[in-house]
Amino acid sequence: MNTIFLMNSLWVMLSTILVIFMMGGFILLEAGSTRMKNAGHIAGKTIFTFGLASLAFWAVGFGFIFGDHANFLIGLSHFFYSGYEIEGMNLSTSIFFLFQLAFAGISITIALGGFAERAKLSVYLVFTALFSALVYPVVAHWIWGGGWLAEHGKQDFAGSTVVHLTGAMAAFAATLILKPRIGKYNRDGSTNNIYGHNQVYTALGVLILWIGWFGFNAGSTLSVDKGFFGFVAINTNLAAAAGTVAALIISWLVLGKSDVSTMLNGALAGLVAITASCAFVDTWAAVVIGFIAGILVFYSARFFEKKKIDDPIFALSVHGTAGIWGTLSTGFFATPELATVGKPGLFYGGGFEQLGVQLTGVVVSSVYAFTVSFIILIIIKKGLNGLRVSAEEEAAGLDISEHGSYGYPEVFYKDKVTNIKEKKVSFFSEQKG
Amino acid sequence: MNTIFLMNSLWVMLSTILVIFMMGGFILLEAGSTRMKNAGHIAGKTIFTFGLASLAFWAVGFGFIFGDHANFLIGLSHFFYSGYEIEGMNLSTSIFFLFQLAFAGISITIALGGFAERAKLSVYLVFTALFSALVYPVVAHWIWGGGWLAEHGKQDFAGSTVVHLTGAMAAFAATLILKPRIGKYNRDGSTNNIYGHNQVYTALGVLILWIGWFGFNAGSTLSVDKGFFGFVAINTNLAAAAGTVAALIISWLVLGKSDVSTMLNGALAGLVAITASCAFVDTWAAVVIGFIAGILVFYSARFFEKKKIDDPIFALSVHGTAGIWGTLSTGFFATPELATVGKPGLFYGGGFEQLGVQLTGVVVSSVYAFTVSFIILIIIKKGLNGLRVSAEEEAAGLDISEHGSYGYPEVFYKDKVTNIKEKKVSFFSEQKG
Amino acid sequence: MNTIFLMNSLWVMLSTILVIFMMGGFILLEAGSTRMKNAGHIAGKTIFTFGLASLAFWAVGFGFIFGDHANFLIGLSHFFYSGYEIEGMNLSTSIFFLFQLAFAGISITIALGGFAERAKLSVYLVFTALFSALVYPVVAHWIWGGGWLAEHGKQDFAGSTVVHLTGAMAAFAATLILKPRIGKYNRDGSTNNIYGHNQVYTALGVLILWIGWFGFNAGSTLSVDKGFFGFVAINTNLAAAAGTVAALIISWLVLGKSDVSTMLNGALAGLVAITASCAFVDTWAAVVIGFIAGILVFYSARFFEKKKIDDPIFALSVHGTAGIWGTLSTGFFATPELATVGKPGLFYGGGFEQLGVQLTGVVVSSVYAFTVSFIILIIIKKGLNGLRVSAEEEAAGLDISEHGSYGYPEVFYKDKVTNIKEKKVSFFSEQKG
Repeated sequence: MNTIFLMNSLWVMLSTILVIFMMGGFILLEAGSTRMKNAGHIAGKTIFTFGLASLAFWAVGFGFIFGDHANFLIGLSHFFYSGYEIEGMNLSTSIFFLFQLAFAGISITIALGGFAERAKLSVYLVFTALFSALVYPVVAHWIWGGGWLAEHGKQDFAGSTVVHLTGAMAAFAATLILKPRIGKYNRDGSTNNIYGHNQVYTALGVLILWIGWFGFNAGSTLSVDKGFFGFVAINTNLAAAAGTVAALIISWLVLGKSDVSTMLNGALAGLVAITASCAFVDTWAAVVIGFIAGILVFYSARFFEKKKIDDPIFALSVHGTAGIWGTLSTGFFATPELATVGKPGLFYGGGFEQLGVQLTGVVVSSVYAFTVSFIILIIIKKGLNGLRVSAEEEAAGLDISEHGSYGYPEVFYKDKVTNIKEKKVSFFSEQKG
Repeated sequence: MNTIFLMNSLWVMLSTILVIFMMGGFILLEAGSTRMKNAGHIAGKTIFTFGLASLAFWAVGFGFIFGDHANFLIGLSHFFYSGYEIEGMNLSTSIFFLFQLAFAGISITIALGGFAERAKLSVYLVFTALFSALVYPVVAHWIWGGGWLAEHGKQDFAGSTVVHLTGAMAAFAATLILKPRIGKYNRDGSTNNIYGHNQVYTALGVLILWIGWFGFNAGSTLSVDKGFFGFVAINTNLAAAAGTVAALIISWLVLGKSDVSTMLNGALAGLVAITASCAFVDTWAAVVIGFIAGILVFYSARFFEKKKIDDPIFALSVHGTAGIWGTLSTGFFATPELATVGKPGLFYGGGFEQLGVQLTGVVVSSVYAFTVSFIILIIIKKGLNGLRVSAEEEAAGLDISEHGSYGYPEVFYKDKVTNIKEKKVSFFSEQKG
Repeated sequence: MNTIFLMNSLWVMLSTILVIFMMGGFILLEAGSTRMKNAGHIAGKTIFTFGLASLAFWAVGFGFIFGDHANFLIGLSHFFYSGYEIEGMNLSTSIFFLFQLAFAGISITIALGGFAERAKLSVYLVFTALFSALVYPVVAHWIWGGGWLAEHGKQDFAGSTVVHLTGAMAAFAATLILKPRIGKYNRDGSTNNIYGHNQVYTALGVLILWIGWFGFNAGSTLSVDKGFFGFVAINTNLAAAAGTVAALIISWLVLGKSDVSTMLNGALAGLVAITASCAFVDTWAAVVIGFIAGILVFYSARFFEKKKIDDPIFALSVHGTAGIWGTLSTGFFATPELATVGKPGLFYGGGFEQLGVQLTGVVVSSVYAFTVSFIILIIIKKGLNGLRVSAEEEAAGLDISEHGSYGYPEVFYKDKVTNIKEKKVSFFSEQKG
């Protein structure tokens, strides 16, 4: 067992842990961006769906992506992975497996953002299983598993397309089918803000995602060779920084106030965008890519709002729009020195060739992810007596409707719970301890 | 200094940091599972007791566990560890020390779960010091320090018994002596739910614990050899996933609703259970072990509830019941290839021998931890004028009774604090800034 | 590319991630220590200022600190770092760059603690850019970049002076110029407690900072050599532990109650103090240094309170007082074996020499950081129409005044938001979904 093998394994193990930690970022981001009555549900379902996605990935997902090339769509071996080493890898296969499992978990979590505050718990369960088996693995196989897009030199270093855009397209399908939340749009065509309930959660969630992205992007080197993963991490950090600054500036200019949510979305958009290109572009280009992503996410969110597409957690703008921009950006900015996959970008004399490959990848992956997700959801809708909780349940909140208790009981059962100022022993007061 | 030594040191350093991060998981899990009036206390005491346990472990704990074998109970050297290398270790002794310190910190934190919402602050302090010196190190010495259970081939890879069961037994003693919280049980024999106040905390806490467990379990290899720590991490993740899914299913079947707390307990139970066996069993067995743990924790919590044993943070079920199951499970599932300690399990032709060793370890460790903890608590009760705050203080909350201010002052002093809607400058209004 | 180079790179990459994670600790610590009406602002601005500081450090900060020695004050090369290797470093320069970027981010975050709950958002932006370009890099250049204090053998292993004291001095300047928050002091000379709104945040923030400090201190070895980074981590942990215990004891003795905030400040003070000396002192000395820091922070906070200097997040006491003590402590405790920079301390026969160097460093760095920060703030005050929001805006909170929406909207817009108990569909109720 040589030293490089072990060092690569160690680095990717650390990266894997960081990517799984991103689940914590999503718990906070999603719970913070939605209302108190749904908070326990949203936080809890993130744990649950990651568990379910883990089992699905172990059973079939890994095999579909990286199994021996059986057909156009997927691989067909390595099911129920049991810990063996696959020959020719320069790191522990177990660790590679877990790293890929974490990516699959992120993709479904992004997808479920489009379901927020109105879908039934049972829908989360069924969709998680089917997306993890039928949607994500196919796109991942095409681009990372040696499939046809890989053969054409598609550049997607850490998954702007594979993970983010695929997830966002499923979220898009869900958003269209589920329809807007009650109260989001008025009969007269005007729009209401439905504020998230806790920006501390949201900001901390973004910070955790930022941290986790070092594993996501720099870990995708799968190697410590030459310390190159450090360079990838710099690009990741600079793009996030530029996205944050850009979003703050644009919201200040346009709205007259710098909105906290917009700024946080700017950070995420920078991160999503640089995900495809982090290993292929110069540091200045990372700043430019992130900056543009920060502006795009602002206008994208306004666009969807105007089109009456209700996207509570901004999954479409952050992961979709920025994912597309990020995937295309390598077609512009990939340098001759760094473009180890595919060709250099337009700005480096590579012409439109790589841009064309990138665009093809975006279109095909989007169409596939959207269509299959749409079909799955329609089938669930018919087969499982609807996707959406009743209007009364939606008003009461999914904590109580789907789980039988509130995530913040002392807020909702106030009179029964907080008799504290009186200092009387009356809360659940039958017994003296 | 050879390369493997340094790589092992690096891996275990990362693992140590993850295990200490689990303290953050416990802060959230415990605060989220209890009421607002106790939240500042519960979060703050976790930091404090980890500090105190760190000093105790440095002064005597490490020496008791790993010191030269002085007698049946404990070792007696290496007190006040000063940074020297112990010969024959294939990683930095400093890092091994800190890794072990973190484990001791986790065990006392589990134990203190049984004290929640009613014990005095002074009791936390005294019990932390005594448990860290007299309870945990003895069991750890027996199993990990070359003591008599180690000599019999007891399998406890990362501490289902040493850390979790020991902590749970102390929690059990505390629960029995402290009695239920006011209002938990009614005179007519019926039971009240006392809901925790924040499920976002709880879910995020579970995610942090899940992450930390990669350090806990995979770090217990103490080595990067062959990348085997990756395999251990896979088993850990699969057991957690299976526990989550099992708990959701069983609560849905039995209660008609899938309860968020139950599901989160399922994840933790899967993690606790796989802790003993993570390096000894196949991936499919990890799924089975985790799944069974997820079901056991559900019925265990119902059992204790029925028996009128008030366990606010489910320490008995999560760390006790699942800790026992996990320890025994290696006796069933340990494979001939992986059982580097002890013998293969029953299902692999190893017969009942290993199961017997495991059972002995469980019984002896449980009896020791329970009895000594019980005695300590009785002594504190007599010597320190009681373990429990007064009924009035309990009703008011431990934030105010033990620390003099609320963890959420704006919730409890509402009229004085939030004059915000009126936009008048009246909060603490004497001075113009 | 040799193995040690790669292992060093890997260790410092992990450390970098931990230091950036400290931003999450500050989000929680600062939001938790202040009021609900400012929480979204405080959390959000931490993300934003880290983004801005990242860009400033990339553009000029790194060059000013580590560039070729152009003059007395700063270096002048390596601007807009593009990923090249600097010769003679035994780790990837990219990773060294990112590690240093993280430190610069921490310093400005500490500085901004002094602005809490009353400064305009625009002030944060301008000050962040100028501090990151003109204040921090100069002190860092003097001590870490081969400047004149380095030449005199100033010991500051991981930045008690460079990062913490520099930040605290800027916070001090801000505190003096901004004046106390409305309501903090009464006309009759008495003082009001303005409680932070969430101690769970605060405690979790401290735990995250504690974790992050392993990267901060042990990562400052920049090397895995001999596993010495593990020893540094032990000292870090012991000092934090001792600070926690000391602060709890002193607050209990003096106030009759053990205050949660005080205890948490004790942990941080221990961490700040050991930052200078973690690699130079014995483990027992780490305990002593941390213990003294825990007591100092208590009296320091009382001193500033009495002097009517309003320091909401205790930046002056935690980072300033403990930073000074930590820097001086190496002059007492540095051992002959470990003092690889400078001379052994007074207690080891080194005489007063090193103590004198340390004191000089403290005084000069403090004066520089304070003066330049003061001047910058005065210029902003004149040039940007004031530093502070209006009294009405301060009363309403910075969430609404600076960002246009609350961080906790459901708390402030209660009637409009929570109609949940009635189970009527009335919140934003115009449309049926």
